[in-house]
Amino acid sequence: MTNNLGTNSAKQKVGVIGSGAWGTALAAVAATSGNETTLWSRNSQVVTDINNKHENKLYLKGAVLNPIIQATTEIDDLSYCNVILLVVPSQHLRSVLEMNRSKIQDGVPLVLCSKGVEISSGLLMTEMLAEIMPNNPIAVLSGPTFAIEVAKELPTAVTLACSNEHLGQQLAQTLGSRSFRIYHSTDPIGAEIGGAVKNVIAIACGIVEGRNLGDNARAALITRGLSEIVKLGLAKGGRRETMMGLAGMGDLTLTCTATQSRNYALGKALGEGIAIDDYLKGRITVAEGLSSSKSVSTLAKDLKIDMPICNAICEVLHHKANIDHTIANLLARPQKAEF
Amino acid sequence: MTNNLGTNSAKQKVGVIGSGAWGTALAAVAATSGNETTLWSRNSQVVTDINNKHENKLYLKGAVLNPIIQATTEIDDLSYCNVILLVVPSQHLRSVLEMNRSKIQDGVPLVLCSKGVEISSGLLMTEMLAEIMPNNPIAVLSGPTFAIEVAKELPTAVTLACSNEHLGQQLAQTLGSRSFRIYHSTDPIGAEIGGAVKNVIAIACGIVEGRNLGDNARAALITRGLSEIVKLGLAKGGRRETMMGLAGMGDLTLTCTATQSRNYALGKALGEGIAIDDYLKGRITVAEGLSSSKSVSTLAKDLKIDMPICNAICEVLHHKANIDHTIANLLARPQKAEF
Repeated sequence: MTNNLGTNSAKQKVGVIGSGAWGTALAAVAATSGNETTLWSRNSQVVTDINNKHENKLYLKGAVLNPIIQATTEIDDLSYCNVILLVVPSQHLRSVLEMNRSKIQDGVPLVLCSKGVEISSGLLMTEMLAEIMPNNPIAVLSGPTFAIEVAKELPTAVTLACSNEHLGQQLAQTLGSRSFRIYHSTDPIGAEIGGAVKNVIAIACGIVEGRNLGDNARAALITRGLSEIVKLGLAKGGRRETMMGLAGMGDLTLTCTATQSRNYALGKALGEGIAIDDYLKGRITVAEGLSSSKSVSTLAKDLKIDMPICNAICEVLHHKANIDHTIANLLARPQKAEF
Repeated sequence: MTNNLGTNSAKQKVGVIGSGAWGTALAAVAATSGNETTLWSRNSQVVTDINNKHENKLYLKGAVLNPIIQATTEIDDLSYCNVILLVVPSQHLRSVLEMNRSKIQDGVPLVLCSKGVEISSGLLMTEMLAEIMPNNPIAVLSGPTFAIEVAKELPTAVTLACSNEHLGQQLAQTLGSRSFRIYHSTDPIGAEIGGAVKNVIAIACGIVEGRNLGDNARAALITRGLSEIVKLGLAKGGRRETMMGLAGMGDLTLTCTATQSRNYALGKALGEGIAIDDYLKGRITVAEGLSSSKSVSTLAKDLKIDMPICNAICEVLHHKANIDHTIANLLARPQKAEF
């Protein structure tokens, strides 16, 4: 498979599909690194705000955006891009691509920036993408990243994984900057899997805080959570060291200690004794871990992998399992070899 | 080498050398698990408080201790123990052992609960112990553990590593309980190395907070810090997966997000612009990362291992390196393959 990045790869025409907080921050990074950057949004107000006021008030309030960024509601405006970043929520990525794939040229590298397991198919995002866009090389970008910090050019480090090492290096050179450090890797699966599971572990950590179980318990959960990520990642063909890196351990650590995140907050409320139906009533945005607990747990069962924390959270969220019984069961598991 | 744990290994006579917060909490765990437990302290007031009031007001205020614990200033009182936990600060362990080794019977398993690199020799604690006590099997206990939470029986999980797997399992059975879960391992070096380095990384994380560099930067530091731990651990013969576990990643995550710890506080003050001499003036207890930055950095140089974060912190703490230049240098390192 060829790709459209020439040998003189430094700066490119970069397209970003998705104008949420993370898509907007990545467009800002790409623009500030000197790339001609086009950001697609389905929301015309967001497009107007970005083009006229250089801000995305709806999704990334407080960041002043580089005026080089061109926002658009027309996917055709991305047809000349030679790198495209995919930053739509994982459960919507298939429909967005199916609607627009004819506008994306063969050979243009697609950088996947959303992670997850598709509920309807059980596929990882890279697997789904390979199915829909078989003629485009795929890379995965992941790591510990609060979007607002990235947009403000605070120091951030991420993994960019591409099975074609040379292309991965080129993409890292194109998208990286002094404050946005990109480490490249050749293991897309390993780079993707952490992001698909982390929100479930964050809910578990929130429950621990809501029940006042202490910081030791939370640190143990994060560690055993990484062990579940590794088991799933190895079963899917990923490499252990990738999951020990920024896209695995780094992202997990950030998500599980960010007490203001939606997933953590949901867990904390449950831990404090609030019923899930009451908590969700009237909320528009939903914690992503709610759906991923189900998709990850199902995938683990299909692959015959033991993921006790993810299964326990799925039981609590979707089958009204009692939280104290669930914690007691987790603690009563036999004490055994760590690996 | 034989050991004194019989085949009926469940409950034992456990001795604990060192009555700081962690030694006291471990004595509490051992006692509550049903072991006859003797705690040695060099401080007679601590001994009186524990024996008469079942508390260690000086080092572990707020925990009610199991009355089974017998505290003593006489090391002879530990001569009948068939398991001994070593919980004195790493830089004092050699002198305590040299003074008392004749009182410890050959074959009695020694569980090392302090981690570090001895400054004078560059030896890890397991290496030093093997030198001084060649006729005793050695195990390492390590993990994410705030002592007060352990003493209060909040859920905690740790690694216990012993090259003799059967003995490791016996020790885990002896010392573990429902709230103090022990995962066993056969990799003492891997279990020990994280604890020797984590405080240096915690100082770096404190600097990041003091300079307002954000949570992404801290998560990246924790992750790259683990990568330095792994490099050092592999060079010393440890195994990667052990360092991914409770004694590595788990302990590192807890230490680097515990903003109240001495190491983190030191880093934060430096990040805020306070000069190190001013900060240290008048303090009795010193952050352990201050000495370990030097010993770890020296060891890394001897072994020709690249540990940029540890080296940078050593330069800042001991050679008056400018913090902003140091951060700029770390960020200016070439962007490269993650592993």
